[in-house]
Amino acid sequence: MFFDRHRATLDAALAAIDSRGYWSAYPEAPSGKIYGETANEDAKKAFEAQIGQPFALDQSANGTVGAERSPYGFDLKIAYPRLDADPAIANALAARASLRKAGARMRVGVCLEILARLNRMSFEIAYAVMHTTGQGFVMAFQAGGPHAQDRGLEAVATAWREMMRVPAHARWEKPQGKNPALVMEKDYRIVPKGIGLAIGCATFPTWNTYPAIFANLATGNPTLVKPHPAAVLPLAITVRVARDVLKEAGLDPDAVQLVADSLYAPVAQLLARRPEVALIDYTGGPEFGAWLSANAGHATIFAEKAGTNAVVVDGTDDAKGMFQNLAFSLCLYSGQMCTTPQNIFVPASGVKTPDGPLSPESFGQKLGEAIDRLLGDPARAAEVLGAIQSHATLARIEAASRNGKVVHASAAAKHPVFADAELRTPLVMAADVGEGTLYAHEMFGPISFIVTAPDRDAALEAAFGTIARKGAITASVYSTDPAFLEKAAERAADVGVALSENLTGGVFVNQSAAFSDYHATGCNPAANASLTDAGFVAPRFHVAQVRRAAKAAVA
Amino acid sequence: MFFDRHRATLDAALAAIDSRGYWSAYPEAPSGKIYGETANEDAKKAFEAQIGQPFALDQSANGTVGAERSPYGFDLKIAYPRLDADPAIANALAARASLRKAGARMRVGVCLEILARLNRMSFEIAYAVMHTTGQGFVMAFQAGGPHAQDRGLEAVATAWREMMRVPAHARWEKPQGKNPALVMEKDYRIVPKGIGLAIGCATFPTWNTYPAIFANLATGNPTLVKPHPAAVLPLAITVRVARDVLKEAGLDPDAVQLVADSLYAPVAQLLARRPEVALIDYTGGPEFGAWLSANAGHATIFAEKAGTNAVVVDGTDDAKGMFQNLAFSLCLYSGQMCTTPQNIFVPASGVKTPDGPLSPESFGQKLGEAIDRLLGDPARAAEVLGAIQSHATLARIEAASRNGKVVHASAAAKHPVFADAELRTPLVMAADVGEGTLYAHEMFGPISFIVTAPDRDAALEAAFGTIARKGAITASVYSTDPAFLEKAAERAADVGVALSENLTGGVFVNQSAAFSDYHATGCNPAANASLTDAGFVAPRFHVAQVRRAAKAAVA
Repeated sequence: MFFDRHRATLDAALAAIDSRGYWSAYPEAPSGKIYGETANEDAKKAFEAQIGQPFALDQSANGTVGAERSPYGFDLKIAYPRLDADPAIANALAARASLRKAGARMRVGVCLEILARLNRMSFEIAYAVMHTTGQGFVMAFQAGGPHAQDRGLEAVATAWREMMRVPAHARWEKPQGKNPALVMEKDYRIVPKGIGLAIGCATFPTWNTYPAIFANLATGNPTLVKPHPAAVLPLAITVRVARDVLKEAGLDPDAVQLVADSLYAPVAQLLARRPEVALIDYTGGPEFGAWLSANAGHATIFAEKAGTNAVVVDGTDDAKGMFQNLAFSLCLYSGQMCTTPQNIFVPASGVKTPDGPLSPESFGQKLGEAIDRLLGDPARAAEVLGAIQSHATLARIEAASRNGKVVHASAAAKHPVFADAELRTPLVMAADVGEGTLYAHEMFGPISFIVTAPDRDAALEAAFGTIARKGAITASVYSTDPAFLEKAAERAADVGVALSENLTGGVFVNQSAAFSDYHATGCNPAANASLTDAGFVAPRFHVAQVRRAAKAAVA
Repeated sequence: MFFDRHRATLDAALAAIDSRGYWSAYPEAPSGKIYGETANEDAKKAFEAQIGQPFALDQSANGTVGAERSPYGFDLKIAYPRLDADPAIANALAARASLRKAGARMRVGVCLEILARLNRMSFEIAYAVMHTTGQGFVMAFQAGGPHAQDRGLEAVATAWREMMRVPAHARWEKPQGKNPALVMEKDYRIVPKGIGLAIGCATFPTWNTYPAIFANLATGNPTLVKPHPAAVLPLAITVRVARDVLKEAGLDPDAVQLVADSLYAPVAQLLARRPEVALIDYTGGPEFGAWLSANAGHATIFAEKAGTNAVVVDGTDDAKGMFQNLAFSLCLYSGQMCTTPQNIFVPASGVKTPDGPLSPESFGQKLGEAIDRLLGDPARAAEVLGAIQSHATLARIEAASRNGKVVHASAAAKHPVFADAELRTPLVMAADVGEGTLYAHEMFGPISFIVTAPDRDAALEAAFGTIARKGAITASVYSTDPAFLEKAAERAADVGVALSENLTGGVFVNQSAAFSDYHATGCNPAANASLTDAGFVAPRFHVAQVRRAAKAAVA
């Protein structure tokens, strides 16, 4: 039923992941014409009504938990059901058989219906994402809503494609010379790996978690959704929708459960250690990522951790476009993206431009000016920057600014509506390529470095060498020399990082488009998996076959 | 060049993995008509000439290592080059870029040529496998030669299929309303995960290792081949062939290196802990498997460990065929297969047959008689049983026979040619379903249990409950009741194990056919991966993309 309703969407998604051209199932414009003229106002009211209230979720619970604070300066005071590890695992195990027996078609139909409903709720998701992550409203709408839904759909389509490679049945006839052939009839059943645990992050609770949730559900793995304590609401809404659709499909809603916790009584480690948990998806800091590797090796782990995203600047024929583009990349959501550039490597001899070379100092000055221009209008600045999600990031900006040479100082900014929001403009520091202790580790947030290397080749080597050791999700290069661009592309492939060349227009290195861009590669320390390639989906299911002898056909 | 030469083989393999009907690229008959009239004699002479000599392998080395002893009763005294972890890793890293740049087509061509050459050497491989594992000659030829080559080819075809899903190029055009579209040109490069480590076992050095070696090589991961110290020769020959073909293709032969070691200075742990090692394939005992999970969590691990393969016997309409089939399964290579049944569950009320029910005692007696009939002729017995590969297995048979009720005693048998070979007939014990301490853990070797349960449903539950806790590669069921068979199939899917129904003819539960049978499921404790599904291959490579802005087409 659900499958037939959404078949056209699935087919288009399958075509898109093969061609990898532009496609999107869910409109990204936060427009009343698309989502309903009252959608925004209704969602805003729903969000405000939720503040201070228990979150209604029909699942097992003992007690409540919840201590979210909007980065825009107020407490959400929402009480979520608390679920202990033991009942969470028991419920998931109990849901496993019905989810398996439902079959790929039914499960994929359920996934598509969940995504369609989430899409209609994009304004509601937007407010939830905005007031947990600190993203500006438009970004919260797009990245938290349609773009996250597209990534979820991409995972579903990839799962469907991989599952459809397995035939339901085969007849195996092995010739035996003059004797009758050996004949076996074989049935192949798709079986899930086990229980999935999807651990969300505080900055992109939906975008980084939907691929795991939907890949798991499509392939039959009951999933525990463990949000970051600071960003529960977007995933709680998601789980509620998922459980509604599961129930309507006659399946056990415990195939998707919310396991909210607190900083004081965290549950992720308890769950990750359980042998029943076979799949762990994690986005977050490298410390917990390392803990998972050391302590949850029984499970298949898909982790996106930290990195030192790099830009190498040899030269450009559009200096203005380059600075505008870089400035926007540094400002967007105050650099709180896993794709934001951190280290900008420039040659000491200067960056080539049509107006002559720019020294590292001039380069820094022009970048600072571009930032200031972009943030000149306070309303626009607030929307681009969003709010700082965590106190740790505020402290990190402070500390970094005292450690070396400041190129562009970070300043507090005012939000036009939320007086208590913590807004910061980007900090840009200068470093020499030898000062790896300053720049060669992740400094999450609006902190970047202009790193001077002796020449462009040294800049390239420093950039990709750092990536090989510390990881990166993105790299970018500016050059008018095809040989240098090709060299950068080869080095990017060597260290396994996605590369953007000469971005000067309306596409930014931070952006990763579903169905087209592979997000992270799984080949450098920043991540061990990629959204959402076959390696992300195929290990989540296997095949249990049944075979029996059959009579050979009479010749 | 190699790719074009073998294109038809690849295409046929691709068709076979989709249909999963019978297909084989490499003839399994050890016949002079196929492999050359002097092939057997030449291979035998080559094997004999190798005994006591250094193994010629053109790769880095410091010193030699080697202490193999044929289970047929003599020392091989072959000295293999010893390679330390540091140079092994350094060489592999140095080979990485050339292997990546070669591209999927070239790498797959190299794999196909290696397999073709190995196939022509199947007699030589057979003697190497026989005199390291103890397999009978025909089995050593088939399982160690063509069947292993087929599994390697299956991995190559699966890798090709998955890599071909990634387009080399895409044009991404995102509409911008009335403004010109955003247009990006994107190139996608397949990039390998890192260095592969393939850890072989002592009983199936080629069959269990080829899928890993060829999946790694096809997807561009330089691979360290770490044989079991007792079974180096088959993999040493394989590595020599691989390096020859790599060299002829103009690639760095260090893409495949032999890392032979000894029981006294093992190297697997050193290598597994290295952060450069991103892929670990392992077949062997659960202790080292657990060590890998706990200590090499940075890598993606594909492990096949131990299990308690089960048979559930409700009834049969062909008791003679059933006993013959079971007896052969227990005798083949003295139960030293990861697919050999261990626990045979029967109802206390008896096994239904056309001649009336068989009590557990009568069932055991008839199974024992079938074993004795099969092994009645000493020459045939020696060929079926092969020799016992390790002293630990001999000791395990001794210990097991003193612990409970013997149904069929294990006896020493004579080999017609090799007087010092250790041959044993199968030990069959009786146990009650409550005596899990006797049967509910792997007893590797020719040791099985007839386990009596109150009724057939209890037998089914005990079988699949044990599998859920301890794992299994195979399960089988005998019943004439379709409802019971369906129940068994559902329970097999629940615990993720392959099921064979009512095997009474020339197909045995031990056998797993390339291109058709999925070997292990990755969904129960016996293994976390399956040969050779997409989940086995897809995580070995990712995509590093390069994108750049392009002009929108003029409307």
